[in-house]
Amino acid sequence: MNAPAVSPAHPLESAVRSYSRSFPVVFETARGCTLTDEKGHEHLDFFAGAGALNYGHNPPDVKRALIDYLSGDGITHSLDMATAARAQFFDTLQARILQPRGLHYKLMTPGPTGTNAVEAAMKLARKATGRSTIVGFTNGFHGMTLGSLSITGNQSKRGGAGVPLNHTVMAPYCGELGPESGQTLAWLEQMLGNPSSGVDTPAAVVVECIQGEGGARAATDAWLIGVREITKKHGVLMIVDDIQAGCGRSGGFFSFQSAGIVPDMVTLSKSLSGMGLPLSLVLLKPELDVFSPGEHNGTFRGFNPAFVTAAAALDRYWSDDRLMRHVRARSREAREALGRIAEERGGTVTGRGLMLGLSFPVAAQASAVARACFARGLVIETAGAHDEVLKLLPPLVITQAELARGLSIIRAAVAEVCGPLATRSATEVHA
Amino acid sequence: MNAPAVSPAHPLESAVRSYSRSFPVVFETARGCTLTDEKGHEHLDFFAGAGALNYGHNPPDVKRALIDYLSGDGITHSLDMATAARAQFFDTLQARILQPRGLHYKLMTPGPTGTNAVEAAMKLARKATGRSTIVGFTNGFHGMTLGSLSITGNQSKRGGAGVPLNHTVMAPYCGELGPESGQTLAWLEQMLGNPSSGVDTPAAVVVECIQGEGGARAATDAWLIGVREITKKHGVLMIVDDIQAGCGRSGGFFSFQSAGIVPDMVTLSKSLSGMGLPLSLVLLKPELDVFSPGEHNGTFRGFNPAFVTAAAALDRYWSDDRLMRHVRARSREAREALGRIAEERGGTVTGRGLMLGLSFPVAAQASAVARACFARGLVIETAGAHDEVLKLLPPLVITQAELARGLSIIRAAVAEVCGPLATRSATEVHA
Amino acid sequence: MNAPAVSPAHPLESAVRSYSRSFPVVFETARGCTLTDEKGHEHLDFFAGAGALNYGHNPPDVKRALIDYLSGDGITHSLDMATAARAQFFDTLQARILQPRGLHYKLMTPGPTGTNAVEAAMKLARKATGRSTIVGFTNGFHGMTLGSLSITGNQSKRGGAGVPLNHTVMAPYCGELGPESGQTLAWLEQMLGNPSSGVDTPAAVVVECIQGEGGARAATDAWLIGVREITKKHGVLMIVDDIQAGCGRSGGFFSFQSAGIVPDMVTLSKSLSGMGLPLSLVLLKPELDVFSPGEHNGTFRGFNPAFVTAAAALDRYWSDDRLMRHVRARSREAREALGRIAEERGGTVTGRGLMLGLSFPVAAQASAVARACFARGLVIETAGAHDEVLKLLPPLVITQAELARGLSIIRAAVAEVCGPLATRSATEVHA
Amino acid sequence: MNAPAVSPAHPLESAVRSYSRSFPVVFETARGCTLTDEKGHEHLDFFAGAGALNYGHNPPDVKRALIDYLSGDGITHSLDMATAARAQFFDTLQARILQPRGLHYKLMTPGPTGTNAVEAAMKLARKATGRSTIVGFTNGFHGMTLGSLSITGNQSKRGGAGVPLNHTVMAPYCGELGPESGQTLAWLEQMLGNPSSGVDTPAAVVVECIQGEGGARAATDAWLIGVREITKKHGVLMIVDDIQAGCGRSGGFFSFQSAGIVPDMVTLSKSLSGMGLPLSLVLLKPELDVFSPGEHNGTFRGFNPAFVTAAAALDRYWSDDRLMRHVRARSREAREALGRIAEERGGTVTGRGLMLGLSFPVAAQASAVARACFARGLVIETAGAHDEVLKLLPPLVITQAELARGLSIIRAAVAEVCGPLATRSATEVHA
Repeated sequence: MNAPAVSPAHPLESAVRSYSRSFPVVFETARGCTLTDEKGHEHLDFFAGAGALNYGHNPPDVKRALIDYLSGDGITHSLDMATAARAQFFDTLQARILQPRGLHYKLMTPGPTGTNAVEAAMKLARKATGRSTIVGFTNGFHGMTLGSLSITGNQSKRGGAGVPLNHTVMAPYCGELGPESGQTLAWLEQMLGNPSSGVDTPAAVVVECIQGEGGARAATDAWLIGVREITKKHGVLMIVDDIQAGCGRSGGFFSFQSAGIVPDMVTLSKSLSGMGLPLSLVLLKPELDVFSPGEHNGTFRGFNPAFVTAAAALDRYWSDDRLMRHVRARSREAREALGRIAEERGGTVTGRGLMLGLSFPVAAQASAVARACFARGLVIETAGAHDEVLKLLPPLVITQAELARGLSIIRAAVAEVCGPLATRSATEVHA
Repeated sequence: MNAPAVSPAHPLESAVRSYSRSFPVVFETARGCTLTDEKGHEHLDFFAGAGALNYGHNPPDVKRALIDYLSGDGITHSLDMATAARAQFFDTLQARILQPRGLHYKLMTPGPTGTNAVEAAMKLARKATGRSTIVGFTNGFHGMTLGSLSITGNQSKRGGAGVPLNHTVMAPYCGELGPESGQTLAWLEQMLGNPSSGVDTPAAVVVECIQGEGGARAATDAWLIGVREITKKHGVLMIVDDIQAGCGRSGGFFSFQSAGIVPDMVTLSKSLSGMGLPLSLVLLKPELDVFSPGEHNGTFRGFNPAFVTAAAALDRYWSDDRLMRHVRARSREAREALGRIAEERGGTVTGRGLMLGLSFPVAAQASAVARACFARGLVIETAGAHDEVLKLLPPLVITQAELARGLSIIRAAVAEVCGPLATRSATEVHA
Repeated sequence: MNAPAVSPAHPLESAVRSYSRSFPVVFETARGCTLTDEKGHEHLDFFAGAGALNYGHNPPDVKRALIDYLSGDGITHSLDMATAARAQFFDTLQARILQPRGLHYKLMTPGPTGTNAVEAAMKLARKATGRSTIVGFTNGFHGMTLGSLSITGNQSKRGGAGVPLNHTVMAPYCGELGPESGQTLAWLEQMLGNPSSGVDTPAAVVVECIQGEGGARAATDAWLIGVREITKKHGVLMIVDDIQAGCGRSGGFFSFQSAGIVPDMVTLSKSLSGMGLPLSLVLLKPELDVFSPGEHNGTFRGFNPAFVTAAAALDRYWSDDRLMRHVRARSREAREALGRIAEERGGTVTGRGLMLGLSFPVAAQASAVARACFARGLVIETAGAHDEVLKLLPPLVITQAELARGLSIIRAAVAEVCGPLATRSATEVHA
Repeated sequence: MNAPAVSPAHPLESAVRSYSRSFPVVFETARGCTLTDEKGHEHLDFFAGAGALNYGHNPPDVKRALIDYLSGDGITHSLDMATAARAQFFDTLQARILQPRGLHYKLMTPGPTGTNAVEAAMKLARKATGRSTIVGFTNGFHGMTLGSLSITGNQSKRGGAGVPLNHTVMAPYCGELGPESGQTLAWLEQMLGNPSSGVDTPAAVVVECIQGEGGARAATDAWLIGVREITKKHGVLMIVDDIQAGCGRSGGFFSFQSAGIVPDMVTLSKSLSGMGLPLSLVLLKPELDVFSPGEHNGTFRGFNPAFVTAAAALDRYWSDDRLMRHVRARSREAREALGRIAEERGGTVTGRGLMLGLSFPVAAQASAVARACFARGLVIETAGAHDEVLKLLPPLVITQAELARGLSIIRAAVAEVCGPLATRSATEVHA
């Protein structure tokens, strides 16, 4: 049993702290899929820094590149001056990711956080179109600064703004109005196409192909194609926020690849730097490259150590398709194991790639299971509008054995929380 | 002559890039006050990452602590989980900075950028007071996400928002309405105290004690005391944005110390991490600690390597008063040299500590001088509403000799741009 | 042919003028359903002041009451001081309308226009609930001041605001997402009930039971009941804007009566004063009576001549059910005649009571038919998102003969615009 | 003693009622400067419908014109169709007011209330300039719909909005920052001229030359000229809201005439119709006539009876300068009488023409005096940020005797409220 009786948080720490409440130990070191706390206890990681550690903790090759760079007095901080590290990262991204996928984007480095990338994309969309409204989707999450928050669904997070969140409109996500038969797209079409809809023609829609905070819910490819067609028809930009679902999490580098669509802009962050260093990026079609010099800026928009680790990670993991084949294999195993639990317990399995959810019929069970998992040595979180989803977000490099171990912890935790399975009657057994 | 004929920027780089235009070389390594580009040219640094490198580039003790941490597989990314590195940073800040100054603040780690700290402080002020309006000051700069931008003065930066920036009101900064005789404070008093002012009672005022982007302009202590008294009288919070002027830049750790006031919140970032790693902090009075768990969050709000370097920097530079004595000595030397130029050329010297400005009577001269400086091996920037101020922001650890060298480059650049000084008449000489 | 070659508008008249473009003559006198222009030409009125003249022009009994009041130096203007005329109007409304229908409302007299009533209701809903968002519906129209305009659908009208229209959300009106099978209500339920919908719990929804500008489109009773149930379930106020569809237009005094629901607030104006004098009213449930004294006011909120005519009209037309039986009989006749045209021309008949629409398959035909009607002596307008609907809004007191004459003018105008009907084949005739 | 023990308000009347609280009787008839209540008591009127009855109650010639029009079945309600009454009003305004003053304006008839005129002017200013910000002034009042309210100073009125009031900025009115020596204009110049002021270049400033609700405070001509010069210099429109101070109240038809300036737009309402009928008007320079047809509209924007009375009033009172000479003579008498009270009691006399204020050193005295006046048969109100001003707003046609009577009532009421005057010492008497 890992959970201590008292808070591990520092006495000066603000009450806003959250994860130190879910995982009440003091962590010290980490490697691969294992976190070690100050007492030497090991924890298996199915959380991966909320998706920021797709290659695991301290991946050796990436870490080596960083230490070498620092040892040689490589320039650390440089705003957006030209540096050797910056150029090398851009070259590597082009060679490993963009060029093989036939994507033609310009690159912008905003402040090194996901929310800053989303803010930059929103500002750019507004400037490029001369319009102010931006469409977000129910249950979406994009960040906590005022712009990003205005397209984030969660009521209590929105409430923290302290001001009304305007210039945005929410639309129903895939499946939000019952079994999908086109009704959510019909409303999107009305919003954009009916001159008396009361929705001023938007600059852009911002969409996650797989919603993370929303409960590891994946939109169908057909729906994504629909969004792309409707936005194109009405001259509205489509921005894919791939901060959590990108960098391989979905089973491809980008989560929109499966639908065969090309967004007008893409935001990346989290796992982009390869080992948890702050870095973010906006990919934009060249015709949208309309910011004036410095019209969006930020002190840490050129954090060279992150360029170094990002380039190293791309070289290490994206030179061939081994990682993606590994992800798809692990995804199948996990879905199968979760499917069995869902069938037994009346839940649902959601998601895609290694961004998977187990939705519980009684919302509170999900959090109880997460706590029970932590007590058994597994770090895992919940998500969803009602926190009803146990969200699996392991490092992509997780081994088959580690994955199996984690899944069996989940199974045991579910049993503890939900009680023993009813023995099936003889009739059922023989049926 | 360092400036190449062609752009050093990567072909994929967005047009938003700015500093690679001002300093058109590719930088590679850096140490102390010296940047070295890919051709081996050395550049003296009077810019210090826009104030993010107060201790210079790659300060050896700080860098050593970072490499040691990484080598030992210290946990890198942990959101806001409790970690050993986090606790040690909080302890060090308390011991080296807060406790000796009699300050009692809680600490919040928002996303690791300055703008995120400002957004968090604005949200918290609104939540704590239940009001929405926030007061900013003319010529102020606080960041580029929608919340921070709404209290930033610069018109072209504001224009990038693409939406009206609301829920904020601007007030005139110290000296803005001519020689200060209380008229700016009289307006602040009206805004807050007249029930028919049309200014809804604000949650907070956000103020820089020395405006950076605004042109290295320092408010007087009397004015800061006036703002503190008026805000206290009307129950309005006072937030000091010490992102650029903090961490020793003003001649004390905090820029508000000279006025003897205690703000309700303080934002820190830039030089806080000690060597350019993204880190930011909101200091808040304990009674304002009203966020719910996770009500403001962010993926990189617990970037442990930055905690490690920040603690190392505090230990190295803030165990005694040597650094501040050094800063004040260098400040005197710089003011004296700049004063001579100002007297000769009809300009003005502004600022405090090692955040100094030389304001030119013809605005365009400032940029011309900055370019001429770069050609002579000195990295320096301009600021001010009309870019009329040459802004000196050297690392605080700059040696007397380095400072003298930089100042003589400035003097030569001014001569090149503004022409030879008129020979004084015999009468004047004999007077 | 009535249309003159030159504009009848005054040379100083602003370009914003609109109806003097549709009906380019100078009107002078009017009585019942007939307008007479300065040349003595008579025009049959199927427009009724956009619904402000339900009892026709200058109804004799109402006019007599007004002249008597003026002749006796009855107080004309009194803001909201207590007056005898005011009290008598309230008494009459209570006795003739509210009490017989079992409705318990308090009465508020805002500025005497419809838009001011809507603004007052929106403000009151926000104050009573402490929330800011208000839900409007696609194709709705509520007025042209900033508050009302923010829940109005029409893009070009919204564009006139010059500022983004915020604090409101639009929802799809009944039938907006294809044949109604609950999908529009499903989205309303999501908006109000899903805590991650991104729609902050609204203060109120504002709905027209029959949309006027939206094209004389009536919501079904089932849909209205659904809206009432969903709003009640989530503690959201339901405001019926009955400015155009109220005062008998729908076949009952209020348009919501057919659905058997009771809104939390109702706005009335247009025909309320009985002969076109500016007057408006907000009906509100007693528990919502939370404005402070004077918290919403206006110079003309107590225009006593309008109280006098309003009371006279209620006494004259609402002492028995003759007027409503008359309306329902005329409605049947009009629907039948329009139905024949629709069948022949591929259009649709919409609306309820004497608020009826004939929707054309080719939008431009509607305006062409309206112009052709005017040339034949019939004043009639168009409506709808694409101006595709010919809107019939005759005085309720129209005689059977006048109605028949107007309908035959429409039939002739349609024939002129759309061409002769194809002769049906022998096969069809015999079928 | 007129005040009854119980409320005269109707049981259904909303709690928002205000003037029936200040003047708790039921009024029935009115003529000239006298109101008569249902008990036959007469009340002298120093309130004039808050400035809507400059020519007194039921002025005979104006009333006669109205009854004649109604008797002849003149068209009452016509939206903005061309009518004979409309044309005649425009002709009369041009001949009696605009042409003699050399003013060239186009005319727009918005909804018939003052607030609607202000909303229309704000929308038009935003459309014409393509900007969104509008500047209002401290202590100003412009109306209660969302647009007008956003430039109204009073905090409790603003609070009724229920949403933040945005896209506007407040500036200090003449004298607001202490004895005027240019500091308020200096801030206006900064707001409009400093590119880093954080105030986005506004579309317009909206100003009252004499503030009504603000306490009958008149700006100096020099200040008005300054506002006109600064706005012209920066291409910002100047809108004079002359709803309360216009139509002769200031001593000229327009309140801005004394300063010799020409605003870009002027709003009129209140006394425009001549006997309290709802009517309003926007005067706009021809180059600002950029609304599309119907881009601002309203059901009662062509209330013909008000056109008829307005034309009759202009003919009756503005064919020569007798009324204005009368106003200036009465103004002198009133200022003298008030001046004596102010001198004795330590107050201040404010205002211009017959819009005068007596400001009390102890705010609560003003309301107490108003109540004492009402008990003595005088209807009078208070104004000012702290309700510290007794506001005199008699009909302009008040006789010398009536004025004297009212002033002596005020003097007696002051004595009752403030106590007997201290007897002056012998020395003073003999001096």
